[in-house]
Amino acid sequence: MAVPFEKLVKGLKQGHLRSLAKMITRVENREAGWKDAMKAIYPDTGGTLVYGITGAPGAGKSTLTNKIAKGLAERGFQVGIIAVDPSSPFSGGALLGDRLRMQEISTIEGIFIRSMATRGTLGGLCQGARDVIRILDAFGKDIVLIETVGVGQDEIEVVRAADLVLVVSVPGLGDGIQTLKAGIMEIADLFIVNKADRDGADEVVSDIQAMLEISQEGHASAPPVLKTSAVTGEGIEELVDMLVRNREEGKGIVRNAEDRIKEEILTLMEQDLFDRIRSQWAGNGALREAVARIMDGTLDPYSVAEDMLTGISQDPVESLSGNEKRGDGK
Amino acid sequence: MAVPFEKLVKGLKQGHLRSLAKMITRVENREAGWKDAMKAIYPDTGGTLVYGITGAPGAGKSTLTNKIAKGLAERGFQVGIIAVDPSSPFSGGALLGDRLRMQEISTIEGIFIRSMATRGTLGGLCQGARDVIRILDAFGKDIVLIETVGVGQDEIEVVRAADLVLVVSVPGLGDGIQTLKAGIMEIADLFIVNKADRDGADEVVSDIQAMLEISQEGHASAPPVLKTSAVTGEGIEELVDMLVRNREEGKGIVRNAEDRIKEEILTLMEQDLFDRIRSQWAGNGALREAVARIMDGTLDPYSVAEDMLTGISQDPVESLSGNEKRGDGK
Repeated sequence: MAVPFEKLVKGLKQGHLRSLAKMITRVENREAGWKDAMKAIYPDTGGTLVYGITGAPGAGKSTLTNKIAKGLAERGFQVGIIAVDPSSPFSGGALLGDRLRMQEISTIEGIFIRSMATRGTLGGLCQGARDVIRILDAFGKDIVLIETVGVGQDEIEVVRAADLVLVVSVPGLGDGIQTLKAGIMEIADLFIVNKADRDGADEVVSDIQAMLEISQEGHASAPPVLKTSAVTGEGIEELVDMLVRNREEGKGIVRNAEDRIKEEILTLMEQDLFDRIRSQWAGNGALREAVARIMDGTLDPYSVAEDMLTGISQDPVESLSGNEKRGDGK
Repeated sequence: MAVPFEKLVKGLKQGHLRSLAKMITRVENREAGWKDAMKAIYPDTGGTLVYGITGAPGAGKSTLTNKIAKGLAERGFQVGIIAVDPSSPFSGGALLGDRLRMQEISTIEGIFIRSMATRGTLGGLCQGARDVIRILDAFGKDIVLIETVGVGQDEIEVVRAADLVLVVSVPGLGDGIQTLKAGIMEIADLFIVNKADRDGADEVVSDIQAMLEISQEGHASAPPVLKTSAVTGEGIEELVDMLVRNREEGKGIVRNAEDRIKEEILTLMEQDLFDRIRSQWAGNGALREAVARIMDGTLDPYSVAEDMLTGISQDPVESLSGNEKRGDGK
C-alpha cells in the first residue's frame, strides 16, 4: 500500500529524504491526491532561489552544475539539482544518463539530485519542474539548480520555471554563439564561457558581449559574462559567490512574478482539461466511430474535433467533470 | 485586403505556387477560416507519402534531404520539403537558418521547400506539420520530406506526422548511437549512416545493427541500414530508389492510421480549448485578482486553477464558447 500523501507531507517538513523522493515521484505521476498535497506544502514555499542552467550541448553543463552545487554546499547552503533528461515518448525511458555523476554528487551532504524526464506535452515539463521546485523548497532547499540535458524548445520551457538563467557556452563548438538556441540570449541573466582553458575562450566572451551590445541597445544593464574551467578551477569560486550574492540580494525571485503565476494557473487549467479529454475520449465509442468515418473518407479530423467540442460546451458537467458520476462510462 | 481562403483553395487545386505558399502561412497562423479551408481541401488529400528525416545534429540531414529531393525530382516526382527550424518563443524569429541552401533547392522544378518554426506548445508543431503536409498533398506533391533542424522532444513530435522515418547517423560524433535521442531507434523505418566517406562508418553501421538485434529480439523485420555520402555520391541513388519503391508498394501510409487520426482529433480539440482559455482568461479580471491573492499569500495556483475550471464546467457555453455572445467581455 502506498503511503498516504499526508504522511509524505509530514515527513517532508521533518526533513526526511525518503519522503522527499517519494513525494516528487508521486506528484510527477499525478497520483490521486497530488494537488491537495501541493496545496498543503504551498505555505512553506517561496524561500528558494532557482537557477536554470542551459546552453549548447557539449558545453559541460553537468560538470559545471556539480561544481556549483559543491561550492554552495561547502558554504553551508542546502542545494537541490533537477537534471532534465530527454526521454522517449514511447517507452518513457530516459537516455543513457550520466548516472555515475548523479551518484557521486548525491552523496554530498546537503545536495539532493533528481532527474526528470521530458515526457508529456504542453508545458507539462515546465509545470513538473515548478512542482518539484516547490517540493524541494518546502523541504528546505535554499537554492535549486535546474539543468537541461537536452536542447530544444523543452529547454526554454524548463528554464522559464527558474528565477535566474545561466547560459553556458564553450569555445570550439564552431561559432560559439550560433550553437546557442535562438531565444536563449534573451532570457539569460548570466553568461558563462566554460572550458576556459581551451583556445578561443576570449573570442567567445567578446562575441557574446558584442551580441549583447546589439540586443541591449544600451537601455538595460547587460548580464555579466564569466569564464570558468572545471579543469583549472578558474572562475568557479567567483561564480558561486555571485550566485550566493544574488540570493542575499533577493535578485530574480520576484521578477515577472505576476506573469509567471498567471502562466502557471493557465497551464494547470489546460493540463486538467487535457487529462479529462484524454481519459474521456481515448477509449470512447464516439471517437472510435469518428475515426472509422475519417478512414472511410466521409469525415475529416477538423470537423470531428469541432463537433466533439461543441458537445463539451453544451453538456460539460456530464462530459468533462469526471467519470465517477456516471456508471455507464465507455 | 487578404485574399479569401476560398480563392486560395481554388488556386491551390489549380497548382498555383503563390496560393500554396499563402495558404500554408495563413493556416499556420490560424487565421479566421483556416479550419474551413482545411476541410475543403481534405477530400483531395491522402496521396502523399511522408518521410520524416531526423537524427543527430551535424549528421548532414539538410544536405541529404536536398540530395533526396533532387533525386526524386529527377525521377519525375513532385516533392515537398518541410524544414523544421528551432525558433525563439520570445521573438518568434527562426535561427540563422541555411537560407542559401533553401534558395538553391527551391529553384528546382517540382520541389517546394518551406521552413516551419517550432513555436507554440502541445503538439502544435506536429499539428502544424500535419496541416502543411495536407496542403502540399492537395497541391499534388507525391512525396513530402520533413526534416528536423533541431533536436529535442519537438523532433520526435514532428516525425510522428510522417508515414516513414529515416534516422540519419554519422561517424565521428563520439559514440554514433549515443548521440541519437532515446525513442528515435524505436520509430525508425530506415537507418542512414551519412558521411560514409569518413572513417568509422562501418562501425556505426554495425553498432546500429547490434542495437537493432537487441531491441527487435527477432520478432520483427529490422529496418535496413544504408550508407550514404554527399561527397562521393555513395548510396544516394540506392536510397532514392528505396524511397520510390516504398511509395509504389504503399508502405507506411496506413501504418497506425487509427492511432494517428485519434491523436490528431485529440490534439485539435486541445488546441482549440487552449486558445479559448488563453483568449478568455489572459487579460481577465478574475485571473488578475487571483494572481494578486497568490502574491499576497492567501491563495495558491493549484486551488485557483481548480476553481476556475469548476466555473467552466458549470457554465461552459458562456465561459468557453467564445466572446461574441456576450457584450461585456473586455
